[in-house]
Amino acid sequence: MHNSVACGGSIMHFSVYLPPAIVLSDHKVPVVWFLSGLTCNHENAVLKSGIQRYASELGMCVVFPDTSPRGSDVPDDESYDLGQGASFYVDAVRSPWSKHFRMRTYIMDELQALIIKNFPVDRERQCIMGHSMGGHGALTIALSDNKGIFRSVSAFAPICNPMSSNWGRKQLAEYLGGNQILWSKYDASEMIRQGGFNGRIKVDTGAEDPYFDQLNISSLEDAAATSEKGAQDLESVIHAGYDHSYFFVSTFVGSHLLWHKENLQF
Amino acid sequence: MHNSVACGGSIMHFSVYLPPAIVLSDHKVPVVWFLSGLTCNHENAVLKSGIQRYASELGMCVVFPDTSPRGSDVPDDESYDLGQGASFYVDAVRSPWSKHFRMRTYIMDELQALIIKNFPVDRERQCIMGHSMGGHGALTIALSDNKGIFRSVSAFAPICNPMSSNWGRKQLAEYLGGNQILWSKYDASEMIRQGGFNGRIKVDTGAEDPYFDQLNISSLEDAAATSEKGAQDLESVIHAGYDHSYFFVSTFVGSHLLWHKENLQF
Repeated sequence: MHNSVACGGSIMHFSVYLPPAIVLSDHKVPVVWFLSGLTCNHENAVLKSGIQRYASELGMCVVFPDTSPRGSDVPDDESYDLGQGASFYVDAVRSPWSKHFRMRTYIMDELQALIIKNFPVDRERQCIMGHSMGGHGALTIALSDNKGIFRSVSAFAPICNPMSSNWGRKQLAEYLGGNQILWSKYDASEMIRQGGFNGRIKVDTGAEDPYFDQLNISSLEDAAATSEKGAQDLESVIHAGYDHSYFFVSTFVGSHLLWHKENLQF
Repeated sequence: MHNSVACGGSIMHFSVYLPPAIVLSDHKVPVVWFLSGLTCNHENAVLKSGIQRYASELGMCVVFPDTSPRGSDVPDDESYDLGQGASFYVDAVRSPWSKHFRMRTYIMDELQALIIKNFPVDRERQCIMGHSMGGHGALTIALSDNKGIFRSVSAFAPICNPMSSNWGRKQLAEYLGGNQILWSKYDASEMIRQGGFNGRIKVDTGAEDPYFDQLNISSLEDAAATSEKGAQDLESVIHAGYDHSYFFVSTFVGSHLLWHKENLQF
């Protein structure tokens, strides 16, 4: 844990998995960022995703950020989908959130620099993935990445079009106010329409996901097909029989890491 | 969940994993029993062991019993290692435990019959494994199995000699009273000395296990080497760098299932 400048001095937690490869060679290892969903912290994916086995075999570092700043000095809301544990990975501009809830800047700048400085990772080989709200986070962070930090992005059951979803409208209004132009900077479907990602995108979703209607996977698919810059490279699959849980994530997380390995070329 | 006669009418919980193989064929599938450790319930291994991936590939059913009866009508103790969540898989004879804490009979007879009756499993192909107190449970249940239910047994960091361990003496005294002959019916090392298991035993333990001194792995190894019926087939490995956690279990659980598959010959 560390004191975050981006998040108004909050104590921020994160987990890091380092593969055996780092002690077997003096090469820096590729890194995958895993962003978790609503109500999660930096430990849920550590305990439930099973990603470590694949990261061990492939020789990748995994970074698990928390889903928001936390603590008694950090604003919160009694509902599960706003405030602590529910940042939606935005840089909030409205009070009381704007002091601490600056998760995009935190992940892209502050934690990024901290990880590069303190761990033996290859800054040229970074990818990002996430689940649900964290899938939204991974997509929107990659799509806003004008420094070319992330070379590929994937998501499990991501919130794809929060501007038109109950998982999104409430939070964007709270954190960002009424400016729809600003909202569109945190909406993966809109971001693809406006420019897209200079790399490949992979999305897997369960057909029995009880939140399927909130995710708007088809909005992302439509946006990718009609992006202004030409078709966005998107591989989106709906899997029969799977729900929204970490059991779904753990079933497909190995295939995601293999896909990222292809994109990172190592 | 179900009402258990063996456990004095308590509501007992368990989890079952059924592999895709059961819908792909009309064959009954082999079954592995997974017993968890102190403080766990029927969900810990479901969420943390990662066993489902291997059971899916191999086509095995997995049964996860709870570690004790539970509820407001069931006796308990304020310490974490006695009472609810800490049955040590014994049939208690002392009050107040003896009415509900009859876990050996529950698992070997009652839950066994319930699983065979309600799920498409092959009763001739059953094996048992466990972690920590659940490793003790798996070993002692297999070693007391005079019906030939279990064809192989394995354990992660099992309590091997509870009669000479802080994890054991207190609980055996509470549940069983002072009769050391009775204690020895729940001590894997003693049970191997007195007869052994008609099959193979596999044990993996982490060299950095903070509870290593409580486990007495060497007692089990010594007993196997000097068993009255001749050497017990035991494969015991201490792994450098691993601790007592489910991360350790999840690392080796696949190799355990492959080993059980060999023994069950499917």
